[in-house]
Amino acid sequence: MEKIRIGIVGYGNLGKGVELAIRQNEDMELVGVFTRRAPKTVKLLTEGVPVYHIDAAADMKDKIDVMILCGGSATDLPEQTPELAKYFNVIDSFDTHARIPEHFANVDKVCRENGNLAFISLGWDPGLFSLNRLYAESILPSGKTYTFWGKGVSQGHSDAIRRVEGVKRGIQYTVPVDAAMDAVRSGSQPELSTREKHERVCFVVAEDGADKEKITETIKNMKNYFDEYNTTVNFISDEEFEAQHNKMPHGGFVMRSGKTGDGEKTHQMIEYSLKLESNPEFTASVLIAYARALSRMKAEGIVGCKTAFDIAPAYLSRLSGEELRASML
Amino acid sequence: MEKIRIGIVGYGNLGKGVELAIRQNEDMELVGVFTRRAPKTVKLLTEGVPVYHIDAAADMKDKIDVMILCGGSATDLPEQTPELAKYFNVIDSFDTHARIPEHFANVDKVCRENGNLAFISLGWDPGLFSLNRLYAESILPSGKTYTFWGKGVSQGHSDAIRRVEGVKRGIQYTVPVDAAMDAVRSGSQPELSTREKHERVCFVVAEDGADKEKITETIKNMKNYFDEYNTTVNFISDEEFEAQHNKMPHGGFVMRSGKTGDGEKTHQMIEYSLKLESNPEFTASVLIAYARALSRMKAEGIVGCKTAFDIAPAYLSRLSGEELRASML
Repeated sequence: MEKIRIGIVGYGNLGKGVELAIRQNEDMELVGVFTRRAPKTVKLLTEGVPVYHIDAAADMKDKIDVMILCGGSATDLPEQTPELAKYFNVIDSFDTHARIPEHFANVDKVCRENGNLAFISLGWDPGLFSLNRLYAESILPSGKTYTFWGKGVSQGHSDAIRRVEGVKRGIQYTVPVDAAMDAVRSGSQPELSTREKHERVCFVVAEDGADKEKITETIKNMKNYFDEYNTTVNFISDEEFEAQHNKMPHGGFVMRSGKTGDGEKTHQMIEYSLKLESNPEFTASVLIAYARALSRMKAEGIVGCKTAFDIAPAYLSRLSGEELRASML
Repeated sequence: MEKIRIGIVGYGNLGKGVELAIRQNEDMELVGVFTRRAPKTVKLLTEGVPVYHIDAAADMKDKIDVMILCGGSATDLPEQTPELAKYFNVIDSFDTHARIPEHFANVDKVCRENGNLAFISLGWDPGLFSLNRLYAESILPSGKTYTFWGKGVSQGHSDAIRRVEGVKRGIQYTVPVDAAMDAVRSGSQPELSTREKHERVCFVVAEDGADKEKITETIKNMKNYFDEYNTTVNFISDEEFEAQHNKMPHGGFVMRSGKTGDGEKTHQMIEYSLKLESNPEFTASVLIAYARALSRMKAEGIVGCKTAFDIAPAYLSRLSGEELRASML
């Protein structure tokens, strides 16, 4: 069997997750990792796989079937995805929801000019959560969709905490409010405010002699990050932080509460949830499954930019259509 | 806008559900209902829609875009789906899992000979549950999938109860065992026996003077239906039966417990669940969303037999690709 040859661009948590996910899929192999750092300084988890500078990527044009872009959505992917789509079939996890249409247009244009295929905005949100919103809203047109996130670490909010004076280390968990989810499940289709849906729980290691009350107030009142939420700030020791808060769990819920039948009186509830011990490892697993889909669709001659919405589920599985119908339908 | 012209074959609970689901989708219209009964004896919920005898269906060949087959899987659909696929694009909810490959082959052959497109085995299981099994197993290749059904009415088990001597009315609910679901969610990937996964709860109205103990024992020991389960039999009055057990709720859970990362130590949990007040109305809603997908794929020239696995999600939605990316991704 010819393996699907994968390249990774960017070797942070997501890139490492992709490297590990490839090990779980016998039909794939890691060809190389591309970085902006000095390649010599990057040590992979996999023996024998070379690290290249990203500027040398184009030279590998014919040796990689799918390039998986593991940079950030703020500045990396808006540049890297269209640039690398000149040479490669690419997959990214671009997650700035408001800028997806623009990103899609940029990537689609480059792909069509160069005969490549790109999948953008994959992962779990956008990605699996988006799919569930689409399926559920199509099936229950009369209803209301709710997305809850957590319990999980928000990198942006953790960064915001760490910028507060007197904070040595900090992490923030987004926590969905049980009462709000139960209200949704009841079928009452409530209007929920930002404050009602999620709370924010922070763990902080303070600098010696820092004013903890002031830290708490500064965090709780921070505009755009915390002021619209019920926020709790817990001060803990360096040791506790190290032991308890060294992981990147996340997850969440997509719920559709719909009505059907004569007079739309019948309540129908669809719920999808993820409970992830590692957000980057799970996102990586999604990207790798879609790399399989990409290589198959490309082999059928499809080019341009696609999202999870455009990809028939069967493309993701190693099983054939016959096997899927016999075992999984 | 040209509406999608729908025909319904079979006017039981599912057929009525399809009729009601069409009302919730402005891009569809009900053209006619086809029945084996005398058409005059069938009274629809919708004014002005004609009822035809099923033998006259072929005459409507050019007036219907998608024919939705609402018969049973035991004897109706294995005959009706291939027969009607000679003249129409068809959708069914064929749910005898073991016979799907054979049914698929029969329908596919007829479709290809006649230039039609068929979607088979749609609904929630097979259907949405199958999709969730496929997505979850593709994303987390190292793991275990569990399907739990209920709480919901099983028609087959209810029929079996009603055949017991001394039973006037009877209904059976399949109930998933909470402890089993919690064990799955813990990540321990347990091996669960039939008895550990589901219990069976029966409500019976006994004939006057019937031996209730004997009824209970007969039900509990019934081979293939109850003997492998913990079963509870409750005797209730006619009035209570009428008031409390006149609905067809159902639902269930698809869970994938998977491991990722270095040494596969990270637990990742995917869970999909449905809580349906009406099983037939929900199944009908799924069929109608896929009728939209069918009419679009047919317009692209696609023929043959397909399942949920083969259909890109975007085809189900009324929204365009641009709208979906802007609003739902």
